[in-house]
Amino acid sequence: MTKPDDPNRVLIFDTTLRDGEQSPGISLNTAEKLEIAHQLARLGVDVIEAGFPITSPGDFEAVQTIAREVEGPVIAGLARTHTADIEAAHGAVKDAGRPRIHTFISTSDIHITHQLQTTREDVKGQARAAVAHARSLVEDVEFSPMDATRADVEFTAEVCQIAIDEGATTINIPDTVGYTMPHEFTAYLERLYALAPGLKDVVLSVHCHDDLGLAVANSFAGLLAGARQVECAINGIGERAGNASLEEIVMLLHTRRPDVGLTTGIVTTEIARTSRMVSRLTGYVVQPNKAIVGRNAFAHESGIHQDGVLKERTTYEIMDATTVGLDANSIVLGKHSGRHALQQALEELGFQVSGQALNQAFKRFKEIADKKKQVTAMDLEALVTDELRDEIATYTLEWFEVEASSRRPPHATVGVRTPEGEDVTGSFTGDGPVDAVFHAINAATGLDVKLREFRVGAVTAGQDALGEVSVVLELGGVAAAGQGVSTDIIEASGRAYVRALSNAQRRAAAADEDADLAEPVALRTP
Amino acid sequence: MTKPDDPNRVLIFDTTLRDGEQSPGISLNTAEKLEIAHQLARLGVDVIEAGFPITSPGDFEAVQTIAREVEGPVIAGLARTHTADIEAAHGAVKDAGRPRIHTFISTSDIHITHQLQTTREDVKGQARAAVAHARSLVEDVEFSPMDATRADVEFTAEVCQIAIDEGATTINIPDTVGYTMPHEFTAYLERLYALAPGLKDVVLSVHCHDDLGLAVANSFAGLLAGARQVECAINGIGERAGNASLEEIVMLLHTRRPDVGLTTGIVTTEIARTSRMVSRLTGYVVQPNKAIVGRNAFAHESGIHQDGVLKERTTYEIMDATTVGLDANSIVLGKHSGRHALQQALEELGFQVSGQALNQAFKRFKEIADKKKQVTAMDLEALVTDELRDEIATYTLEWFEVEASSRRPPHATVGVRTPEGEDVTGSFTGDGPVDAVFHAINAATGLDVKLREFRVGAVTAGQDALGEVSVVLELGGVAAAGQGVSTDIIEASGRAYVRALSNAQRRAAAADEDADLAEPVALRTP
Repeated sequence: MTKPDDPNRVLIFDTTLRDGEQSPGISLNTAEKLEIAHQLARLGVDVIEAGFPITSPGDFEAVQTIAREVEGPVIAGLARTHTADIEAAHGAVKDAGRPRIHTFISTSDIHITHQLQTTREDVKGQARAAVAHARSLVEDVEFSPMDATRADVEFTAEVCQIAIDEGATTINIPDTVGYTMPHEFTAYLERLYALAPGLKDVVLSVHCHDDLGLAVANSFAGLLAGARQVECAINGIGERAGNASLEEIVMLLHTRRPDVGLTTGIVTTEIARTSRMVSRLTGYVVQPNKAIVGRNAFAHESGIHQDGVLKERTTYEIMDATTVGLDANSIVLGKHSGRHALQQALEELGFQVSGQALNQAFKRFKEIADKKKQVTAMDLEALVTDELRDEIATYTLEWFEVEASSRRPPHATVGVRTPEGEDVTGSFTGDGPVDAVFHAINAATGLDVKLREFRVGAVTAGQDALGEVSVVLELGGVAAAGQGVSTDIIEASGRAYVRALSNAQRRAAAADEDADLAEPVALRTP
Repeated sequence: MTKPDDPNRVLIFDTTLRDGEQSPGISLNTAEKLEIAHQLARLGVDVIEAGFPITSPGDFEAVQTIAREVEGPVIAGLARTHTADIEAAHGAVKDAGRPRIHTFISTSDIHITHQLQTTREDVKGQARAAVAHARSLVEDVEFSPMDATRADVEFTAEVCQIAIDEGATTINIPDTVGYTMPHEFTAYLERLYALAPGLKDVVLSVHCHDDLGLAVANSFAGLLAGARQVECAINGIGERAGNASLEEIVMLLHTRRPDVGLTTGIVTTEIARTSRMVSRLTGYVVQPNKAIVGRNAFAHESGIHQDGVLKERTTYEIMDATTVGLDANSIVLGKHSGRHALQQALEELGFQVSGQALNQAFKRFKEIADKKKQVTAMDLEALVTDELRDEIATYTLEWFEVEASSRRPPHATVGVRTPEGEDVTGSFTGDGPVDAVFHAINAATGLDVKLREFRVGAVTAGQDALGEVSVVLELGGVAAAGQGVSTDIIEASGRAYVRALSNAQRRAAAADEDADLAEPVALRTP
């Protein structure tokens, strides 16, 4: 990707599917990653980092599918400086309209000594070879000196200049451990510009982690120092405390544009929906007081009675909730709505559904519409993403019976269909009715599963809201998440549990494959 | 409070109980606020802003109780510049060892014109009179020019100098709408120092909101410009996107101390517990990727299997999880542990429990220990805070029976004891078993309640974890929250629901009292 002509245009590089997906307990399958990638394209991001193809066949397949099917953004794949990594990344992204290979190696002495166990000279050689190799395969190559903010700036500048000389078109400076401070980062980048004269001819990028709560501020400091690409993730997910929040950096530039003068290509009205989709598919909740996308972020969204109408809106609001798409909850269907109305509503939401998939969606819609008076856009989003999951579930919960009482232990019986199509049943008690269902599923499937996390949220407000259950469990040392949506918490929990089971089995199988690779794959990334 | 002798000492002013408590759906009672205040004292904050005493008799009582019982920190009460506000604040804080009155008025033209509907001259007069009045009552007076970052800096400086001349000992600059940027805030404060020469003799404070994700960075920019007090809240709660997170600003100063040189009086090992307590009592979840206190914030806390032990810990960690108290989950009791062991364990956690309260806690402990193999420190925290809530519950759930199945609608029957001591029962169906229980409680009590939110989290990991349910409901236009803890999700939900009911009734009664006041109380604050 060449530098944009407009010197004030900031490129948004989304790493939700790479750094975000590396968070513990997140296990997106290809269909889910593709759905998120399509939404990121609607949101208008410039680059989608779709994964780290060398790490597993599943990751490779997901990146390849996104590269083939998602139009608009550059599709990037991550690679260490190893030849095999770069070839895997190239194999996965090469069918994209605009493919990018993103390769990285640490320049900090602490990483060079303890993690890489090598020398500075070797790092220079690896960077040179990797960028040259990547550049022989694609036009668009990004290079990151990992842990740069804790590295010697002169050595880092030398490595960056080598990458530029070999044809890197973007140089990304990662604050890998979330250590730097805005004024320090500004000074670091100014020094880098002075030391690596080639930097002014490529796109300078920043990749900041939030360990000290400064990811957005550091990214912004980077932009003020001349960077024109920000690496960020929806809801700020990512390793440990996560990456800079896409929605925060974008709305900061949007809100303060008259003073700062920088622009992005983001369609801000898609922000709220993207946030909900990522939260739902990853099972990662957004806290109510999260900036931009938390449910209280906009005063008038809080639903709390205000003492009179505000005399002037701008008195207490610097952003309008409609700008981030928070008015989008308008499509309302009811139990008498037909198949065509549903299809139209789904299309408005960006979901192309027809044939058997539409029949299936319509069946679920009617079940819900029987229980809820009004089915909103947010309910439809939840249902469609719920259906999406079923396409890949290997275990399914067919039926259940539960008795619970304060006077005796709860008891559950369940019917489960196995991946082989067999119907099995199991009965068990538990500490509570959901626990009894989980134990009954274990009894039915004969699997030794440990529950790690269990969380319930509501899709919309109100007594008849859809409940959304998120489960994280462990099976044979592998953690996996599953989600389920229903007005019935026991049904939603059971669905989430069998999906997590299916994901865990799939992951365990993939891990077995990985174990056969010559070299164990370390996931330490920028 | 006079300026500390050490020029590098930063005062931590905690507003969890004031700005944080103003978040939608949070309704802490006096016992809960007192528990949090005691914990804030253990955490070592310098100032506790305990509430806004004029706003309701309940708020007045809570501030007064904290002022009388919590030793160590300065106890502050918020007041507009009105005489009645200042007298209420004084009445509430005067019994504290070190009382503070914090008074505020807007200096931005947008607020002066649209909100206050007055003139700059009047604002100067009100500030002068309020500070003089407050100073005649207490030694320690803080003044805030609200919305300062959107105000004319020269006018703001003039008002600040007036407050200093009248004896204000702290001048706090609020970024009320979360609008400023670090470099802009630095420049603003430098200009303020130049324009108001008296500023150098008092403590300069900053109060930043997180609407654009910059609250911590702006607070930090304030400190670099010379401020020595930061107003912040646990978990970053507060109006809209909340305030600066106490844990983030504190750990930033702690981690970067060799480079920045600023210190606080915070006992960092109390951070994790304080965060859990505030999350539990407010019902506000902390997202997994939240800096410092999110469950993934520390890589080794994620519980995910790592590929081999890290060669050197600092390679990927800039903070040690034990520094923020994440190793505190060590006390483990079992079903054979006695009353004395429980009392000792609670004492280690900072809870002084004896007599009838100990008997009650022991009874609950044995119930849980029968179901769980190990009862950890985190379980005990949850149980004690759960018991705390019972002291004020007016409705109690006595028993329930539920049948749920995928083949027919769920059905629930409940027994509830009313505030009058009457036992009532109700039966109902619902969209799910929890919904059926809620409807049955409505049927039993005859109250017209709307459920707004329902959320479940686990206290610790594992299949036998305690579930923690948080419910927000609306009764007669008043929103209130309730929480319940149990291994049984239906029991926890029922407990949470009747507690939310009790809180809503109490709030509705308080709102009726407020409606009798001569002047309606607006809650717009810095």
